[in-house]
Amino acid sequence: MKNILIEIEYDGTAYCGWQIQSNGISIQQKIEEAIFDLTGRKTRINGSGRTDAGVHALGQTATFMTDSGISSESMAMALNSRLQDDISIIGSEEVPESFHARYSAKGKVYRYRIFNRRAGSPFEENRSFRYSKSINIENMKDAAKSFIGTHDFRSFMASGSSVEETIRTICRLDIDKTGNTISMEIEGNGFLYKMVRIIAGTLLECGTGKAKPNEIPKIIESCSRQNAGRTLPGYGLYLVRVIY
Amino acid sequence: MKNILIEIEYDGTAYCGWQIQSNGISIQQKIEEAIFDLTGRKTRINGSGRTDAGVHALGQTATFMTDSGISSESMAMALNSRLQDDISIIGSEEVPESFHARYSAKGKVYRYRIFNRRAGSPFEENRSFRYSKSINIENMKDAAKSFIGTHDFRSFMASGSSVEETIRTICRLDIDKTGNTISMEIEGNGFLYKMVRIIAGTLLECGTGKAKPNEIPKIIESCSRQNAGRTLPGYGLYLVRVIY
Repeated sequence: MKNILIEIEYDGTAYCGWQIQSNGISIQQKIEEAIFDLTGRKTRINGSGRTDAGVHALGQTATFMTDSGISSESMAMALNSRLQDDISIIGSEEVPESFHARYSAKGKVYRYRIFNRRAGSPFEENRSFRYSKSINIENMKDAAKSFIGTHDFRSFMASGSSVEETIRTICRLDIDKTGNTISMEIEGNGFLYKMVRIIAGTLLECGTGKAKPNEIPKIIESCSRQNAGRTLPGYGLYLVRVIY
Repeated sequence: MKNILIEIEYDGTAYCGWQIQSNGISIQQKIEEAIFDLTGRKTRINGSGRTDAGVHALGQTATFMTDSGISSESMAMALNSRLQDDISIIGSEEVPESFHARYSAKGKVYRYRIFNRRAGSPFEENRSFRYSKSINIENMKDAAKSFIGTHDFRSFMASGSSVEETIRTICRLDIDKTGNTISMEIEGNGFLYKMVRIIAGTLLECGTGKAKPNEIPKIIESCSRQNAGRTLPGYGLYLVRVIY
């Protein structure tokens, strides 16, 4: 048996999310079906973590055990020929048996994309959150600084999570504007339920003047979800990379 | 009557091209239907030029005459609410009666996108030409220099065109690589039938070693289509901007 690590890029638009669910088609299910088609064995894959409905990935990871004779490096393209265009296995390699996509991860990088123009773009449909009015990007950058460090991020956790330990470390939060697109890229050792989308919503409120950048420390300290901004939609979010 | 100039962004995937045709749905037709729905008048729009099936635009332009009471600046969003997501009117303004989207144009900017990775990307489907093997971008840049200037570009014109004057001026041809995407951006006073796609195909052959950068002047001088590279597919091509 070999332990295979795959890296996956996907457009989440058509899916109920990463994880297998009874009420929709998931990305995990599609990949497990492709592995079954390729190897003839029912195989469970372990992702680095869930992504919600509509959320995209540029570098999701997953591990699975297989006794397939196909070389580890050829696995990616062999699976791609059994997957639709909205899921692409961009790499595959053998890793030590003890390696686990989720438990071995040291951190993750996410990106949230806001398309700041009144008219929509055909190339941004389902791939960014559109905001029509003007955004002060300097205020967003100011606000971003206060997220860096180790904090209790309970104010930025959506209800419905059973996680008890809510302290996380954010080591990077970059705000950039290219053309009409504002990108927020955030790197941390872990993220609470919908945390990136709530941080994005709070930063957007700083950019629109609804909140002030210097209020962020107080919002964090309050440990109260109602003090943070709204949860932006999943279709603007990308899991960029899992760090090992 | 007012003469209205509109700027249009579109994903060409679902269309037979810009121009109205009997055998498919065109972008021009969709916009004319939206204008009819908005104003109650059958209105002919004049584009800056045709784009082929599958070709995209970030800044196509068109002009049309209307006696509508809607303000010129409001026209864009009023039309957008009557168009599908793959066509977006990104601006509208009144221009002098003598202004014509095609005849007033001084030049155009096109971009051709090559996605250089073995595995496809869900975000690049129908939006770039995928090439799996390695590409020497310095050779492409070398080759690009020879296109700059005023030349007879007959070697880079597809058959099926009735144009007799084949001399055109290219003032800029930039090659850039960002991530896995190679962009060629070309600016000129006009382009022959499929000229950008044939130039892109010839540059790609310089990048893959099938042609040498120093052969470009001879290929141009020969005035023979068979000496140039292949025509790359329409879905990698973008009309970026029309210059007035």
